[in-house]
Amino acid sequence: MSSNKFFLKKNFYISKLFPKIKFSKIIEINDVKSLDKANKNDLTFFDSKKYKNLANQTKALFCITTKNLINELPKKTEKIIVNNVLSELARVTKLIYPFSDIDYPDLSLKDISKHKYKFVKYGNNVLVGKNVKIGKNSIIGSNTIIEHDVEIGKECIIGSGVIIKNTLIKDNVVIQDNTKIGQKGFGFIPSNKENFKFPHIGKVVINDNVEIATGCTIDRGSIDDTEIGENTYLDNQVHIAHNVKIGSNCMIAGQVGFAGSSIIGNKVSIGGQAGVSGHLRIGNNVKIGGGSGVVNDVEDNQVVMGYPAVSIKKFLQNKKK
Amino acid sequence: MSSNKFFLKKNFYISKLFPKIKFSKIIEINDVKSLDKANKNDLTFFDSKKYKNLANQTKALFCITTKNLINELPKKTEKIIVNNVLSELARVTKLIYPFSDIDYPDLSLKDISKHKYKFVKYGNNVLVGKNVKIGKNSIIGSNTIIEHDVEIGKECIIGSGVIIKNTLIKDNVVIQDNTKIGQKGFGFIPSNKENFKFPHIGKVVINDNVEIATGCTIDRGSIDDTEIGENTYLDNQVHIAHNVKIGSNCMIAGQVGFAGSSIIGNKVSIGGQAGVSGHLRIGNNVKIGGGSGVVNDVEDNQVVMGYPAVSIKKFLQNKKK
Amino acid sequence: MSSNKFFLKKNFYISKLFPKIKFSKIIEINDVKSLDKANKNDLTFFDSKKYKNLANQTKALFCITTKNLINELPKKTEKIIVNNVLSELARVTKLIYPFSDIDYPDLSLKDISKHKYKFVKYGNNVLVGKNVKIGKNSIIGSNTIIEHDVEIGKECIIGSGVIIKNTLIKDNVVIQDNTKIGQKGFGFIPSNKENFKFPHIGKVVINDNVEIATGCTIDRGSIDDTEIGENTYLDNQVHIAHNVKIGSNCMIAGQVGFAGSSIIGNKVSIGGQAGVSGHLRIGNNVKIGGGSGVVNDVEDNQVVMGYPAVSIKKFLQNKKK
Repeated sequence: MSSNKFFLKKNFYISKLFPKIKFSKIIEINDVKSLDKANKNDLTFFDSKKYKNLANQTKALFCITTKNLINELPKKTEKIIVNNVLSELARVTKLIYPFSDIDYPDLSLKDISKHKYKFVKYGNNVLVGKNVKIGKNSIIGSNTIIEHDVEIGKECIIGSGVIIKNTLIKDNVVIQDNTKIGQKGFGFIPSNKENFKFPHIGKVVINDNVEIATGCTIDRGSIDDTEIGENTYLDNQVHIAHNVKIGSNCMIAGQVGFAGSSIIGNKVSIGGQAGVSGHLRIGNNVKIGGGSGVVNDVEDNQVVMGYPAVSIKKFLQNKKK
Repeated sequence: MSSNKFFLKKNFYISKLFPKIKFSKIIEINDVKSLDKANKNDLTFFDSKKYKNLANQTKALFCITTKNLINELPKKTEKIIVNNVLSELARVTKLIYPFSDIDYPDLSLKDISKHKYKFVKYGNNVLVGKNVKIGKNSIIGSNTIIEHDVEIGKECIIGSGVIIKNTLIKDNVVIQDNTKIGQKGFGFIPSNKENFKFPHIGKVVINDNVEIATGCTIDRGSIDDTEIGENTYLDNQVHIAHNVKIGSNCMIAGQVGFAGSSIIGNKVSIGGQAGVSGHLRIGNNVKIGGGSGVVNDVEDNQVVMGYPAVSIKKFLQNKKK
Repeated sequence: MSSNKFFLKKNFYISKLFPKIKFSKIIEINDVKSLDKANKNDLTFFDSKKYKNLANQTKALFCITTKNLINELPKKTEKIIVNNVLSELARVTKLIYPFSDIDYPDLSLKDISKHKYKFVKYGNNVLVGKNVKIGKNSIIGSNTIIEHDVEIGKECIIGSGVIIKNTLIKDNVVIQDNTKIGQKGFGFIPSNKENFKFPHIGKVVINDNVEIATGCTIDRGSIDDTEIGENTYLDNQVHIAHNVKIGSNCMIAGQVGFAGSSIIGNKVSIGGQAGVSGHLRIGNNVKIGGGSGVVNDVEDNQVVMGYPAVSIKKFLQNKKK
């Protein structure tokens, strides 16, 4: 089974991808995966000590990394030592998945009436790509686009003017009008004349009972996935960047933004217009005040506020000064 | 005349809705309304001392409330004493209006050309539901959806890719591309396995000469309405939550957000990216600086700034420290 | 050649526009332009000392201004002295360009298949106006609207649900789903009963290799143009107001907002949810921290943060206090 049905994949021997590196085993790369998701024949990458616990347990046979990090990787993993991990990762991922760096519009779309879904109701001009699955009793609003290979569970209500691509949606999910899910995230290797667009081979996973309000944008993952946990609710105009993982039973108010790769716990509530920086870990039962800017990890059960967000106690003390 | 044409209503005797409560009069509930809007045979709710002035003048025959608030209500109003007012309100409103808790896409939409409006111009793929009224000399852009029972006045310009539902729009209103009006707001009773979605039986009212720019979201009211006063202008990507009331002649700059149920006066100007918390009262002629976060009521004629927003004088003093 | 192909223009003698003013030369106005763009037979305006360097070099024959500014203008320029420059400018621009103050939806749209573009691929329900140019190897997604006279270069990828009007797009540009470009900006002369909408006769120019993510809004210029420089990338839900000019090689993260008429240098990076006030000049190589509010000009190579944004050094010192 292909691990990635959304993007055309080309097969490469590891030596073809890195012709200047000497490998002890010359095998065909199966996929590009994050440290924890990689299997034996996969290529992974490791560029920050922050992830050393994942690094020393990776099953990947090949890992793009830097000289100073090689001791954190298992012995059996072949180290591909480079100066710029993300740049090399982008380059080879683009070779393997040549159409993952730009959201080429799906030109296989057809009116849903030509697809003959059973027990699915729909409005006008609903456009559906190849191999889309839609569960029974789901309803799809007018002018909505569901691109190829997307899966939507049963009892889902998808509004009008919605666009969904590269996404798996479980059961009983509500997505309101005009929300956009699964597009490429904001990632590139800067270059003076023409930036190198970072391939995005991940997807979005939306679990059971999630509700997403109007005008949200949820980018798919770059190498890993973006994921929203069960029974989490998002208000209007929320922006979720690539690779963000939000736990279950969270409440995310309007216009909140998440930068890339942050991991949010369960039962987290976030007030309107708050922002969460990239690569953070927010614990369970955390409350983030509206308008706050979170730039550091937050432990379980904390209430934080302000910019940069601090504990509410400290925030109120600072205001008294 | 039905008080609510947007949602199917079922008829219930009060005793059927609250079988454990003893009532002195067993009558059929006419509607669910806020304290001030309720008429004799309506059910209302009262859950905060903040609204005691409305409570003691309500005409409602039945009111869901808590033990400690019953003395604020008129003698003739029967008190339905519960632990959690909003939870009980949600439960019975869902019984009375069973389709108001999810935005089921309108499947009655037809191309506008089949509706035979007089003196209305329109683009391609304009989809219009049953009983929609559109006044003369109004123009509707392409790919716009106007769901059942919406009313649009005369001389209105509605852009392309707009979605309007559960809304009354008066005359000479401009709505730019991609704005979404009338969808369900962000409200639910949290529950571990599956939240209980709060029914939204209110509508949106947009008064004469309003201009709403591109990509805004304006949620309909939950029990009450969301309303925008005459000659108020909204910039792009503004988010207005349920039950918010904005006065006349206001200027709301880009990316401003309003949490639920706040009441904004007349001639209020709000700078870009500012946020207004829920259940606040902002006076007339108030100016709110860009990027501010307003968390308290603001009296008439004040200029406020910062997070939390304070008078501009105090804000500048704090910055000097 | 008409200088403005997007809006119908009417011809006026200067004396007809300002019947109470005595002119030494009575000629037909060619166009309305900003101080630096105006040519001999154009009408311009000058209302702030901030622009005196542009004023004293203008080639315009006629300039709307105030009494205290007339000495900054060249001798040959006829001064039209008024109390409120913008109000008079709005009035006469509306006479000259009567359809530029409201975004009347383009009713000339036809399915792209009827336009016979060569080497252009497209999805379903792509609607294209008169005189639209699309370069070879460009791809247009479904439900996208491209209004009359828009130009799109070659090798561009335009997503689905996009709306583009009054815009010139160069080559190799990527625009993701649901972004709206070229709509009227947020400008009006307030008036109690009915505001006077400021005509917007400018356009949007998007240069080579730009990438714009999902759900952005980019307003066209009022008198001047809005412009995005080469190889600049915008993340999701960015809002760019009228007349903003962004340089080349910039990185603008999600939910950033720009108020009108600011000029941003090259290689500027701006973190998520930051805001830039109107009429500012941000230098080259500036970095603006996420969530910041910039209210003053920023010189080249500065790193700024906070609200109001100050140098990062000062920001950190303030936090220590």
